Amino acid sequence: MTSLTDIFPALEGLGIEVPSWAYGNSGTRFKVFATPGTPRTIQEKIADAAKVNELTGLAPAVALHIPWDKVDDYAELGAYAKEHSIALGTVNSNTFQDDEYKFGSLTHSNPAVRQKAIDHMYECIDIMHQTGSQDLKIWLADGTNYPGQGNMRSRQDWLADSLRKVYDRLGDDQRMVLEYKFFEPAFYHTDVPDWGTSYAHTLALGEKALVCLDTGHHAPGTNIEFIVAQLLRLGKLGSFDFNSRFYADDDLIVGAADPFQLFRILFEVVRGGGLGPDSGVSLMLDQCHNLEEKIPGQIRSVLNVQEMMARALLVDVDALDAAQTSGDVLGANAVFMDAFYTDVRPGLAEWRESRGLPADPMAAYAASGYQDKINTERQGGQQAGWGA
Amino acid sequence: MTSLTDIFPALEGLGIEVPSWAYGNSGTRFKVFATPGTPRTIQEKIADAAKVNELTGLAPAVALHIPWDKVDDYAELGAYAKEHSIALGTVNSNTFQDDEYKFGSLTHSNPAVRQKAIDHMYECIDIMHQTGSQDLKIWLADGTNYPGQGNMRSRQDWLADSLRKVYDRLGDDQRMVLEYKFFEPAFYHTDVPDWGTSYAHTLALGEKALVCLDTGHHAPGTNIEFIVAQLLRLGKLGSFDFNSRFYADDDLIVGAADPFQLFRILFEVVRGGGLGPDSGVSLMLDQCHNLEEKIPGQIRSVLNVQEMMARALLVDVDALDAAQTSGDVLGANAVFMDAFYTDVRPGLAEWRESRGLPADPMAAYAASGYQDKINTERQGGQQAGWGA
Amino acid sequence: MTSLTDIFPALEGLGIEVPSWAYGNSGTRFKVFATPGTPRTIQEKIADAAKVNELTGLAPAVALHIPWDKVDDYAELGAYAKEHSIALGTVNSNTFQDDEYKFGSLTHSNPAVRQKAIDHMYECIDIMHQTGSQDLKIWLADGTNYPGQGNMRSRQDWLADSLRKVYDRLGDDQRMVLEYKFFEPAFYHTDVPDWGTSYAHTLALGEKALVCLDTGHHAPGTNIEFIVAQLLRLGKLGSFDFNSRFYADDDLIVGAADPFQLFRILFEVVRGGGLGPDSGVSLMLDQCHNLEEKIPGQIRSVLNVQEMMARALLVDVDALDAAQTSGDVLGANAVFMDAFYTDVRPGLAEWRESRGLPADPMAAYAASGYQDKINTERQGGQQAGWGA
Amino acid sequence: MTSLTDIFPALEGLGIEVPSWAYGNSGTRFKVFATPGTPRTIQEKIADAAKVNELTGLAPAVALHIPWDKVDDYAELGAYAKEHSIALGTVNSNTFQDDEYKFGSLTHSNPAVRQKAIDHMYECIDIMHQTGSQDLKIWLADGTNYPGQGNMRSRQDWLADSLRKVYDRLGDDQRMVLEYKFFEPAFYHTDVPDWGTSYAHTLALGEKALVCLDTGHHAPGTNIEFIVAQLLRLGKLGSFDFNSRFYADDDLIVGAADPFQLFRILFEVVRGGGLGPDSGVSLMLDQCHNLEEKIPGQIRSVLNVQEMMARALLVDVDALDAAQTSGDVLGANAVFMDAFYTDVRPGLAEWRESRGLPADPMAAYAASGYQDKINTERQGGQQAGWGA
Repeated sequence: MTSLTDIFPALEGLGIEVPSWAYGNSGTRFKVFATPGTPRTIQEKIADAAKVNELTGLAPAVALHIPWDKVDDYAELGAYAKEHSIALGTVNSNTFQDDEYKFGSLTHSNPAVRQKAIDHMYECIDIMHQTGSQDLKIWLADGTNYPGQGNMRSRQDWLADSLRKVYDRLGDDQRMVLEYKFFEPAFYHTDVPDWGTSYAHTLALGEKALVCLDTGHHAPGTNIEFIVAQLLRLGKLGSFDFNSRFYADDDLIVGAADPFQLFRILFEVVRGGGLGPDSGVSLMLDQCHNLEEKIPGQIRSVLNVQEMMARALLVDVDALDAAQTSGDVLGANAVFMDAFYTDVRPGLAEWRESRGLPADPMAAYAASGYQDKINTERQGGQQAGWGA
Repeated sequence: MTSLTDIFPALEGLGIEVPSWAYGNSGTRFKVFATPGTPRTIQEKIADAAKVNELTGLAPAVALHIPWDKVDDYAELGAYAKEHSIALGTVNSNTFQDDEYKFGSLTHSNPAVRQKAIDHMYECIDIMHQTGSQDLKIWLADGTNYPGQGNMRSRQDWLADSLRKVYDRLGDDQRMVLEYKFFEPAFYHTDVPDWGTSYAHTLALGEKALVCLDTGHHAPGTNIEFIVAQLLRLGKLGSFDFNSRFYADDDLIVGAADPFQLFRILFEVVRGGGLGPDSGVSLMLDQCHNLEEKIPGQIRSVLNVQEMMARALLVDVDALDAAQTSGDVLGANAVFMDAFYTDVRPGLAEWRESRGLPADPMAAYAASGYQDKINTERQGGQQAGWGA
Repeated sequence: MTSLTDIFPALEGLGIEVPSWAYGNSGTRFKVFATPGTPRTIQEKIADAAKVNELTGLAPAVALHIPWDKVDDYAELGAYAKEHSIALGTVNSNTFQDDEYKFGSLTHSNPAVRQKAIDHMYECIDIMHQTGSQDLKIWLADGTNYPGQGNMRSRQDWLADSLRKVYDRLGDDQRMVLEYKFFEPAFYHTDVPDWGTSYAHTLALGEKALVCLDTGHHAPGTNIEFIVAQLLRLGKLGSFDFNSRFYADDDLIVGAADPFQLFRILFEVVRGGGLGPDSGVSLMLDQCHNLEEKIPGQIRSVLNVQEMMARALLVDVDALDAAQTSGDVLGANAVFMDAFYTDVRPGLAEWRESRGLPADPMAAYAASGYQDKINTERQGGQQAGWGA
Repeated sequence: MTSLTDIFPALEGLGIEVPSWAYGNSGTRFKVFATPGTPRTIQEKIADAAKVNELTGLAPAVALHIPWDKVDDYAELGAYAKEHSIALGTVNSNTFQDDEYKFGSLTHSNPAVRQKAIDHMYECIDIMHQTGSQDLKIWLADGTNYPGQGNMRSRQDWLADSLRKVYDRLGDDQRMVLEYKFFEPAFYHTDVPDWGTSYAHTLALGEKALVCLDTGHHAPGTNIEFIVAQLLRLGKLGSFDFNSRFYADDDLIVGAADPFQLFRILFEVVRGGGLGPDSGVSLMLDQCHNLEEKIPGQIRSVLNVQEMMARALLVDVDALDAAQTSGDVLGANAVFMDAFYTDVRPGLAEWRESRGLPADPMAAYAASGYQDKINTERQGGQQAGWGA
């Protein structure tokens, strides 16, 4: 089998965007539990994200959510981030919290509402020019709750038209990543429910439009790694939203629910050339720390991706290929599982130390006093959340 | 086939409790859309529920939710309801919105938190004595989000202990109905996830403890009518929470997502003796009108139950039995489907008129001016919602 | 609402291909139950299919399965069918029952096995030239059972290459329809698991390649009517395999499990221009009558499609559009449901009689004596089945 | 954390019954692939099972399936097994392959068919007396494919009556384990679909009746470890049928599809006292090696259970309990995951060698020449299979 040191160069290429909203409060329709130390501003979110990066070396950028993270001066925000050794990453648009979007945004039957949503996307693109962000992420809550409520067919045409208008506004180095989701908040139909729909639209748009794959947005039983392989093959995988799920869009910590699935997904990322800064594939977290501590939750998350990426890189692809070609089912599976069952944690701890990082970032955070500090400092104000 | 007039006597026994919270705002974690005319108080909710009953003759009682519907004087509230020809029904407890319940309520590892939840149940029982309510409904948000987070085994023991304490406080004519739910808001494990768990606990408690079946709380593909038949057979079906779903606990209008499933469920209700005031089975709605109008949504819901109950009563059980016994698969299915495909709406409209009710309650509501009236009157104050 | 007579012209365009294998024995891995009267030859299957068409006027063609229905002289077979007023329809290929296909056919890592499968497709195309069939249906059992067993990525490339070779052999008036399936018989990954994959391949191939949508081949909860609408919009819906399911690929009678879903699907067929002989969309059954009688099972199936198509045609699209546009959720849903709940059976019975068909084809079959006749005549020989 | 050597004593108690049918051919309704060396007789199956036990020390008993494994002289069979250091284990009944069972067996509406099925159970009990088997396993294919086809309610009563008759025939040291299954081969309703049903029946029967949990027989998303914990708590878990699944009842190698789920299940087995010969819980495989080699498939399976049981035993329950009690979500999860991510394979290899077993049983089997030997010897005759 490949040794851990062999894969360190490839692992160097691993960087994971963290979402600004992961540091704010989140919850379910039943309850949002508040926690001490929760950021009130995007600056405080960036400070928290910087802590994650400082301790892991894995989280060099923070994704913004507009309007939750709107500021007057993005140059200033960029400078603030840079001071914290953090880049501003993907800009996430939001067309689901305005009353006018109750029945749709980019897919609304009313052109005025569609234009409002398009204008919001233009605003996001403007912000991207200021922040230097590459990706505009479009996730739509659009859909219907009851059969007959909306015209699913026309909504696709309206969607295509709206996306075209947004696409044409993209700068040369900017991309649009179109996220799909199986259901929620719409309960009968979703306008971009599956990778096929996202693929069809981004294909029609052009090469700057790509698919965003959120690992929690599929039907039960879906083989996600197949979709990863397929989209990479088709040249249309733009980015990941990592998280994990047992049931619906649970938004749990990546790798928490089904670590073996994460392994299979990352193996396809590696096999398909999706790892590394030049791959064109952005890796991002999209999670909700409803019950667990937020900053440690983010640290745990990026470590989970790193550890599992290490295992995926350890797969002996020559042996795998030989077993596959010879129809040796158990042999091929054994090569695959051998990498999964390898304990990469001690080796990664050493590697981390060799780069001046703490061997155990979770312990280092606990010992850092940072949480106590923000618990104390962040009094008053409005804790960040989803604004739902 | 049985004729519609033959089944009117059985239909007379149909009464459906409506939930007070259906008249307030609800939504998802992404957004709660507010609507004009939304009640600010339990009195206004009762007034709305009374309108539903006035136009349909189907909704004689309204279920309360504590603490959302807490008042100082329940005798006064009962009198107010009575003036509106409405009874106060099931009392729904709430142990999921206090910060102390973050990690559980009746199942919490800390006995003090369990006692707090038990005390809440005691309070609900006290209220039931004042309102004359029969049923205490216990639905628990208790569960965990991550493997290892809690001790699933011990939590069952704590649950049993907590339930025993509540059970022992029930009055002679009071019952406890224990609701189960597959998932949400907990995403790894739920402490009462399935009918088997609810059955095991209520069996251990005694005959005043029964199972509450919410039609939206099952795993994908679950044959719910089988559970209905089984619980009726075991004498442990206490009540229904009606709604419908395509995916998770969508809380859509009953019968909206899969009308044939509702037919099958109601057929088992009829076959198992679950229809009628003396059956011991309470029929209740539990829905969220996130996008649609609330009062018409409730009218549509109780009509859906009535229409489908009529179809279920129309099944020619003798012909069905004969076909079943002879192994005539297509014949038996045809008898079943014949009732389902019968259009009962004209006959029910006539019957409604014969009882002094509007033939078309939806149209009657639209024509009544009630919505305009409450839109105008209900200005200011805090619209009712989930308090999430 | 639209009246039933208004829609008769559109209904005239309804023709449903029946599968030859529906008349043979089928079952599960646990047991295949044999029945009296089961055909031994393709001629007997055609005779049975002709009976279905004679009594319903709905089943003008029978789909063949190669090699199950191989004969020496297809001209003779075509003449035989024509005598029975039946056309020979879609040719279904089979690359899943030869030992060499254990690890794949068109996707096999071994080029020789791929060529064998391609050659089989060539043979099917040759047969199509003789039978005058339009469509070559490709459904692949290809996939793997264990992670690591096969190279999912390379298999896509091999598949693309194999399909290209087959596509290039198609005659001018011939088409390839590529069916997708969520799982079974492969249990880890399927090489054409979803509409997106089928779409991507058929798009790359050209306009003679289209998607075949089997209503039983999706993940739990999938909104199938959305896919129908999307594929029609993209111009890539070639054919349907109708059946119904509660769980997996149950292959039950179409409309039996979720009649409302069938209604929604057919509504999108109508809305998207998929109904009628010039629509380019072939409607076919693909079912297994494991327990029920086969010929009556087929009669019931085509009637189910006809009845539900009538309901779909009854939707008042102007009223629907008006309600949708005004954001009237309950109103739009009501227009939709009004058509679904209309009892079209008496009107269709009259219409049938007006065309010289029996009012009740199921009763007519029972009274025809056909089943007794074939039970008596078809003694000895090998009953047709799947050859599994 | 607990060290591996600490858990060796507990691991000593691990013994897994292997099913005789795992050594025969199996497949899907589409195809059963035959393989060289497949046993023709129960004796040859026992020889294969003995090889698995010889190389792993983990498979001391083989489960029989009646009638597939019927012999004239069970004393002789028992002696043959004993010579191979194998015990005869659970007797699996079969009431799904006789034509009379087409519409049910223990649940059939016809008392004569029920009696036939009961008589089969009596025969199995007689065999158990001869083989010294403890458990009669009852898995029923009973159910229906279409709504209305059968009387679900009456079938429960008939089932209860049939089970009572069987139960009363059990010897003092014999048990009945009643297996439940979500679906297949029945596609609408299954007469014992869930643990609740199996629990209700076995509870009514008495203490010799227990539940059999097959890990592949649940709805998508079901938290199986919760059911394990619950049944152990209720004293009603009799046995496991281990396998794994991605979709339906895939019958893949245990631990292959979701190793983390197996870990969670085995942790609850350990926590609930279900490990060891005196626990009253029988661990058994129930798998189908459709594509992979059978004997190595069985070796891999028992090793998977052993390795994962070792990880489950490694959980530091004191640290876990402390983290759980303090509400430390990430800490508790970390304790849990730490055990899961530990590579137990080298330690187990050493332990194996210390007991005179091969360090690598898979390699040892490959080197043994056994497969070549049986491939050569087992010519002619009828390869064992399901007889479907």
